[in-house]
Amino acid sequence: MAHPERPAPRRLLHLNAFLMNAGHHDAAWRHPRTRPDRVTDVRYFQELARTAERGKLDSVFLADGLALWGQVAHNALGGFEPLTLLSALAVATERIGLIATVSTTFNEPFHTARKFASLDHISGGRAGWNIVTSGTVQEARNFGREEHLEHGLRYERAREFVEVATRLWDSWEDGAVLLDRERGIYADAEKVRPIGHRGEHFGVQGPLNVPRSPQGHPLLVQAGSSEDGKEFAARYAEAVFTAQQTLADALAFAGDLRGRLARHGRAEDAVRILPGICPVIGSTEAEARALEQELTDLQVPEYGLAQLSGMLGTDLTGLPLDGPLPELPEERDINGNKSRFTLVAELARRDGLTLRQLIARLGGGRGHLVVAGTPERIAGLIEEWFTRGAADGFNIMPPYLPGGLDHFVDQVVPILQERRLFRTEYTGRTLREHYGLPRPAGARSESPESPLALA
Amino acid sequence: MAHPERPAPRRLLHLNAFLMNAGHHDAAWRHPRTRPDRVTDVRYFQELARTAERGKLDSVFLADGLALWGQVAHNALGGFEPLTLLSALAVATERIGLIATVSTTFNEPFHTARKFASLDHISGGRAGWNIVTSGTVQEARNFGREEHLEHGLRYERAREFVEVATRLWDSWEDGAVLLDRERGIYADAEKVRPIGHRGEHFGVQGPLNVPRSPQGHPLLVQAGSSEDGKEFAARYAEAVFTAQQTLADALAFAGDLRGRLARHGRAEDAVRILPGICPVIGSTEAEARALEQELTDLQVPEYGLAQLSGMLGTDLTGLPLDGPLPELPEERDINGNKSRFTLVAELARRDGLTLRQLIARLGGGRGHLVVAGTPERIAGLIEEWFTRGAADGFNIMPPYLPGGLDHFVDQVVPILQERRLFRTEYTGRTLREHYGLPRPAGARSESPESPLALA
Repeated sequence: MAHPERPAPRRLLHLNAFLMNAGHHDAAWRHPRTRPDRVTDVRYFQELARTAERGKLDSVFLADGLALWGQVAHNALGGFEPLTLLSALAVATERIGLIATVSTTFNEPFHTARKFASLDHISGGRAGWNIVTSGTVQEARNFGREEHLEHGLRYERAREFVEVATRLWDSWEDGAVLLDRERGIYADAEKVRPIGHRGEHFGVQGPLNVPRSPQGHPLLVQAGSSEDGKEFAARYAEAVFTAQQTLADALAFAGDLRGRLARHGRAEDAVRILPGICPVIGSTEAEARALEQELTDLQVPEYGLAQLSGMLGTDLTGLPLDGPLPELPEERDINGNKSRFTLVAELARRDGLTLRQLIARLGGGRGHLVVAGTPERIAGLIEEWFTRGAADGFNIMPPYLPGGLDHFVDQVVPILQERRLFRTEYTGRTLREHYGLPRPAGARSESPESPLALA
Repeated sequence: MAHPERPAPRRLLHLNAFLMNAGHHDAAWRHPRTRPDRVTDVRYFQELARTAERGKLDSVFLADGLALWGQVAHNALGGFEPLTLLSALAVATERIGLIATVSTTFNEPFHTARKFASLDHISGGRAGWNIVTSGTVQEARNFGREEHLEHGLRYERAREFVEVATRLWDSWEDGAVLLDRERGIYADAEKVRPIGHRGEHFGVQGPLNVPRSPQGHPLLVQAGSSEDGKEFAARYAEAVFTAQQTLADALAFAGDLRGRLARHGRAEDAVRILPGICPVIGSTEAEARALEQELTDLQVPEYGLAQLSGMLGTDLTGLPLDGPLPELPEERDINGNKSRFTLVAELARRDGLTLRQLIARLGGGRGHLVVAGTPERIAGLIEEWFTRGAADGFNIMPPYLPGGLDHFVDQVVPILQERRLFRTEYTGRTLREHYGLPRPAGARSESPESPLALA
């Protein structure tokens, strides 16, 4: 029944709590307000997830890498495997979504589809998969390869991987389980079918050994902004996590991605675009800037230089910190995270930064937007990007934890709620419902070879 | 300080709760006392784990397979991936161990080592890994192979896999994390080292991206009883799960395994031997037998025949249920679970069983010992096998759940406790402590190439 007198539902922000050991700032662990001693304490992450749920955030978001990156001498690196952790967070929360990063380059679709189906059951429909292709040779070397798979090939494998995973999730139809004790029929065998996939990268017979989960498929998130990454997102993603330094860049990115959606036959609003933001919150502008400076002063330059060398695909060791960047390669010669390379190189060029200044700028967000200011200033920026169409929400990257998340939830969220930009209560039960995205219909017996039903 | 007047600590039983959807009997899901509607409800498994913990059991134990085996039309198949599930059980319990089966044939050591290290942190030192090599072509077909890897090759891969995993767990020394905020030193980089493994099956640079976990290594469990399996167990396992139909067979198995331990330079008591037992409990012998018959009457013969065909590597479809078994292959021609093949073939021959009778006999335990009787009778059998040296404990396989576990915990455990054969309270915090096994010392900076420190 239509209610023409009712206004269309107001478009609301989507906010994820992107959790990271002691916080996103690379010196967070040195700050007295953090708890780096708790990075392998599951209760610490359960407390953070409950804080995010208190703030009615859409999800907690976990990054991942398959190697111990960077210098463990100088940062709180190493910790939980994301899916194992999210399962423990699922049973400590009730509503908040749970997004784990899993690489398609070093996994098998059967395992990955199965684990996400498990997490989706365990959480009652709150699982999301941030699909990455992995960007480093350190990861390749943990999986029997001397060189990293080439960027384009990684995305080719990722496409086949997601198609296979999707068919596995659909290999049990909704309603397949009959539970007819009298007749001894547990499931309708016609509705649990092999997928018989034989492709370039994978051969998977199926069916999955997990019944179809509450969401059908976990929410599909993507986090690469290269040309290959954007094409992948336009075809498969339901949410995109992206690094954008300016409103203009974010608007251009959103416009580009929405244009690609149309070419893949998908609606313009089929994808939620979520830039990362690292909010350095103070009760005054001066207090916020002082906190930012305090964190910068705790940075270990050697660590920052090593991180920067990785991002730029260029060994910067031994270069003077107060000098300029050396000549850099072209993006086409980067086989890691191409879009991050370009962002960092442009940031340095645009603002004429020395190495030291660039390390300071990247310390909080590794290329994501860092904003130091009052809750009002941060809420204002979020509102502006949102209302201008540059973002459907944000991945919130607290510079230090747990305080940085507490302040966002207790000081920024209420402003956004007051401005009617963010929910005051959860209205849905599943992550798809929080994001306002439909549950995939799944395959049907009549058309076992039907195309993917993602959107 | 020595206390010569104190008696040596009494040897106590080790008991695991082997959980399985609606129960171990293949018709359990049809029985009115089971809840097959809850096999994808995490709270159901949390309740079962808490019941096992109430009984002071050593662990919950989860089997695994990487395919949807058997006929889902006729059994409650499909459910959680074990590691995802155990993480959710870890945070719902405090003391009980958590053992997950993971195959070395279709996984990578970096992922597996990492997930177990995560689970060990999440659970505060309660993780165990049941190492299997996978026995079916159905699993191979979910991982790009048309044929299953040959039995001997599977064990060769398993050996290298466990060696690599062990070195990854030891790649962070105890005490590597310094947390020196003042000097900006998070970890002693000398104590977090690459492993630089280049072997026949794997190349893994390391280090792991998880700090060393409470137990150092998860408890290593092994569950194959073939020649290759026993050699593998004698070299690496700390607990062995085995199927034995008679006291004589169990004694022979235990003697064989203990002899092999000596040849690998390990102490005779370095391994806990745990046969499976499916206890069908009634308040009288007649009641127990009636329950067993009730479950047998609920069996779907078509399902049993398909299962039996799998175990025997022989297609039995269409053969008369009341006739004898056909000619069977030799164990050497079996590429699946060799020891289970031999056990089932000998059981049928020894007792002259028809197909129908054999299906009934295998319904409860798939080859594991099934005992129907009063709590006293079941406790008596456990005591006899234990005191005779045929077992250090048992994997308890309730024929139906949750009632079968409730009855074991409430009726059998108290008898064993009264006889001073089983703990009345947990004395340890970790699974290794429950099993009376030491925490591995780990590698040392001085000898990066030191041999494995497993025992």
